[in-house]
Amino acid sequence: MQIVNRSIELETATGIEIYDITPQIKAIVKETGIQNGQALIFSRHTTTALAINEFEPRLMDDLKVYLRKLAPETGSYKHNDLHLRPNIPPDEPMNAHSHLMAMTLSTSEVIPIANGKLALGTYQSVMLFELDGPRKRSVFCQMWGEFKERRQLGVEQWRGR
Amino acid sequence: MQIVNRSIELETATGIEIYDITPQIKAIVKETGIQNGQALIFSRHTTTALAINEFEPRLMDDLKVYLRKLAPETGSYKHNDLHLRPNIPPDEPMNAHSHLMAMTLSTSEVIPIANGKLALGTYQSVMLFELDGPRKRSVFCQMWGEFKERRQLGVEQWRGR
Amino acid sequence: MQIVNRSIELETATGIEIYDITPQIKAIVKETGIQNGQALIFSRHTTTALAINEFEPRLMDDLKVYLRKLAPETGSYKHNDLHLRPNIPPDEPMNAHSHLMAMTLSTSEVIPIANGKLALGTYQSVMLFELDGPRKRSVFCQMWGEFKERRQLGVEQWRGR
Repeated sequence: MQIVNRSIELETATGIEIYDITPQIKAIVKETGIQNGQALIFSRHTTTALAINEFEPRLMDDLKVYLRKLAPETGSYKHNDLHLRPNIPPDEPMNAHSHLMAMTLSTSEVIPIANGKLALGTYQSVMLFELDGPRKRSVFCQMWGEFKERRQLGVEQWRGR
Repeated sequence: MQIVNRSIELETATGIEIYDITPQIKAIVKETGIQNGQALIFSRHTTTALAINEFEPRLMDDLKVYLRKLAPETGSYKHNDLHLRPNIPPDEPMNAHSHLMAMTLSTSEVIPIANGKLALGTYQSVMLFELDGPRKRSVFCQMWGEFKERRQLGVEQWRGR
Repeated sequence: MQIVNRSIELETATGIEIYDITPQIKAIVKETGIQNGQALIFSRHTTTALAINEFEPRLMDDLKVYLRKLAPETGSYKHNDLHLRPNIPPDEPMNAHSHLMAMTLSTSEVIPIANGKLALGTYQSVMLFELDGPRKRSVFCQMWGEFKERRQLGVEQWRGR
């Protein structure tokens, strides 16, 4: 049993955009040689989120409409009264809706790995939601379990809390 | 420390239905003899989902009303314009609402196991949501941690990605 | 590799309230000496929930408005027809909205730990949502991975199912 840390880096588009990060996760499965165990996928931002579902382009359009109906960008939010919040940077965005959308979706997802493969169903993809782009984003991907051979732990320079 | 894979199979009812799968998970805890560790419960479909809450029949009715208010079946969705989507099977359903409901709920849930028992609270049940039935459905259940004795890894025939 | 169980206990305020439990989780990371692995945070009640996001006071106000819009306390719910439910305690609350909010948020969150620290992003906090207070509440916190030294498993008296 061992633990291997990796991260997936993305530069995102403006506003709300959805990315299929399954190829990157599959590449990490292959590179690390993990055979059995789990992939923990963790969104490290408060205006990104995760979901596992069908990455069908027209459904992605529906999803954006859905999220905007739940938390309209033009709604009235206390978080967006920037002049009433202490110690905020000069480029602080008005993004309360992005936070609310993120909490409606997920921050952590755990995917079982069996026989060297993610045990995803036929139509399942792991999706990263950019909810306040454009930005540089990072997704933590921790693999643990039984590997073909000993691997470096990885991401030694990680800044955590 | 070891990993054991199992799956829970269900044949679901029409439309939206909610199933308490706690008894099946408890049976796997008992059968595998896991003492301490975790149960990873993973929904392997894009129109099923998981939640952990009180499985009270009248609350289940409220929950269906709630989900249908969030994502009405009769709404206008691009995903349901089947004639505009390439390479879909002839029996492709119009189920955009089911996908949206699924992403509002969960795909993966991790439950701690302590002293040979799921550390669920008194009123907590693990529920599988069928959001586009009827279908044959499968829930991945991966147990890992300390077991009473060595167990087979299990689910060797698993088709993953 | 080892597993260590801890719990976080809170006495909550009336109605809906949101608590930043990151300091308690960080204290458990430090106390147990975990270096690499994961923290599984598990809400053990059906009217509490978890989310990982920015704990900004004005955003917390927006979040309460958001949850109350999704599942209004004054809505009509079958779960609240207490006289139609068998075997309920005399102090059973009318809290269908609390359950619906909880399922919109999360029950389990898994946080990677690297180099002795939670791999949380700069603005991320782990939040416990009290959705039907005031109550005594308990959050399960299971750490597993590589520790500086051997620790007791902990929470031996845990009542599970």
